[in-house]
Amino acid sequence: MSGLGVRNLLALSATAIGAFYLGSHTKRERLQQSSSHVIRHFPGLPTFGTVSAASLVPAANSANLTATPSRVSQIMKYGFPGLDHVRSHSDYVLSYDRRNRIPHWVFEHLTAESVARNDAVDRSKCDFKPDESIHPFFRSQNTDYRKSGFDRGHMAAAGNHRLHQKHCEETFYLSNMAPQVGQGFNRDAWNSLEMHVRKLTKSYTNVYVCTGPLYLPHKEDNGKMYVKYEVIGSNTVAVPTHFYKVIVGEATDHKLHMEAYVMPNKVISNDTPLNVFQVQPETIERAAGLLFFDQINRNQLTSINGNKI
Amino acid sequence: MSGLGVRNLLALSATAIGAFYLGSHTKRERLQQSSSHVIRHFPGLPTFGTVSAASLVPAANSANLTATPSRVSQIMKYGFPGLDHVRSHSDYVLSYDRRNRIPHWVFEHLTAESVARNDAVDRSKCDFKPDESIHPFFRSQNTDYRKSGFDRGHMAAAGNHRLHQKHCEETFYLSNMAPQVGQGFNRDAWNSLEMHVRKLTKSYTNVYVCTGPLYLPHKEDNGKMYVKYEVIGSNTVAVPTHFYKVIVGEATDHKLHMEAYVMPNKVISNDTPLNVFQVQPETIERAAGLLFFDQINRNQLTSINGNKI
Repeated sequence: MSGLGVRNLLALSATAIGAFYLGSHTKRERLQQSSSHVIRHFPGLPTFGTVSAASLVPAANSANLTATPSRVSQIMKYGFPGLDHVRSHSDYVLSYDRRNRIPHWVFEHLTAESVARNDAVDRSKCDFKPDESIHPFFRSQNTDYRKSGFDRGHMAAAGNHRLHQKHCEETFYLSNMAPQVGQGFNRDAWNSLEMHVRKLTKSYTNVYVCTGPLYLPHKEDNGKMYVKYEVIGSNTVAVPTHFYKVIVGEATDHKLHMEAYVMPNKVISNDTPLNVFQVQPETIERAAGLLFFDQINRNQLTSINGNKI
Repeated sequence: MSGLGVRNLLALSATAIGAFYLGSHTKRERLQQSSSHVIRHFPGLPTFGTVSAASLVPAANSANLTATPSRVSQIMKYGFPGLDHVRSHSDYVLSYDRRNRIPHWVFEHLTAESVARNDAVDRSKCDFKPDESIHPFFRSQNTDYRKSGFDRGHMAAAGNHRLHQKHCEETFYLSNMAPQVGQGFNRDAWNSLEMHVRKLTKSYTNVYVCTGPLYLPHKEDNGKMYVKYEVIGSNTVAVPTHFYKVIVGEATDHKLHMEAYVMPNKVISNDTPLNVFQVQPETIERAAGLLFFDQINRNQLTSINGNKI
């Protein structure tokens, strides 16, 4: 697909999201009833500052490098997008969508140190493995991906977790995967976006990134809107139509900068600049059914997608 | 559609579910890691027997008839199917799917007394109303349904909540609705199923019923499987392909009987017997990403769909 083709596709896509998710022009209202708020203030539940809800289900098979409550609260510093089947791994936090057998979202906290090349960590020794902490009814398997034509695409990128071999290995749980077009997407445009996120650790002291799938509607000839996506394997693993990343960079002056990207799960020309994929974070929130960085008032942000606000 | 047509359709549908969700023949394994188990045993979280997670977000605008913890624990006696955005109303409990703007599931507890005709309750005085407890990004509106061709179909049926006018009114929150084919489904076959459930209160002391949507995959000419569903209105409210009910009846001898139904969201001939729609509960669990009546060991059940086990 040509760069221009992708631009048109993205323009269409952005229009589609805009039309359907920005239609109501609702003021970004942080309701008291939003579950994370209620939960935070509910007596008897641990508060996010200390032990988060994410630590309810620590990663399986990681006895010697378990997630510490302090690491989880570092990663989730600015709020949980949702609280559905949350798993805390030693260096990332994940919410699992049992119906679609892929994540709702994964959350990572990156620093220059955590993404630096580390010869002690060998990615080639990591194996894709089923996540035993997921009930077998909802657990994806390597066989689901085999001959599907799709890659097992990392949501929390392996290259973001280089401090310990265990950190890297834990990104290979199939619960952290979603079916991605390989050549031209997972190994190309998507990988470029992941590298861009890592590069942000040169500009910011702390980088927080939330990654996940989208199932965006399209209009058909009858004028009606439909969501349509393939499902693969005997466990009917969903193939998302798009993927998103919402990123917050914390500068040395403590100012916060947000970037938000949506990429179609399609072959994308290598010459397509990343800013083509930038969207307003709210469009992703509406489409995903999630609220990102809920504990940051949008007025506290210095920029969104490089634009001063 | 003829009765035979529906039977074929259901047979196909059942085969489809069977093939894709029963393929692995996994033993029904109640893992320790299943979140409800973990949460139940997690210190600092209220246990289900006393105050349930459902009471985190009580129904909005129901100050004079709020859900009591004891009523919630009655309704949810046999376990939560999931814990995503749970709302406890005074006579039913709901989990909201923010991405699809309709419920994941609703849970009701019926007795002969609670479903008895009560002239003090007037359904015609109830109005469909947006649920203010849902964040505006994810809240469905009456305008979403207007001219869509679909009914606002109750998940917790209005006719099941006749003890108080308030109980009936609370079933009219749009968060309790999903787009249903009107003539031939919502007003016919689905209504017959709801009446069947109410009639079970004549055979059982307590009837527990969980209701919700499904988005079932179908095979296309290219041999691949797809999930496809319409979305309506500016809030892109999902139109499920199917709906389910999973029911447990508690007999006077305390024996438990389960029934499980899946109906396509389509015109169904009035002469179609209800048992055509019966499926193994596990097929619904796999398709919905939920576990029903988790606190009942399947060995404790006396019958499933009328068959002794």
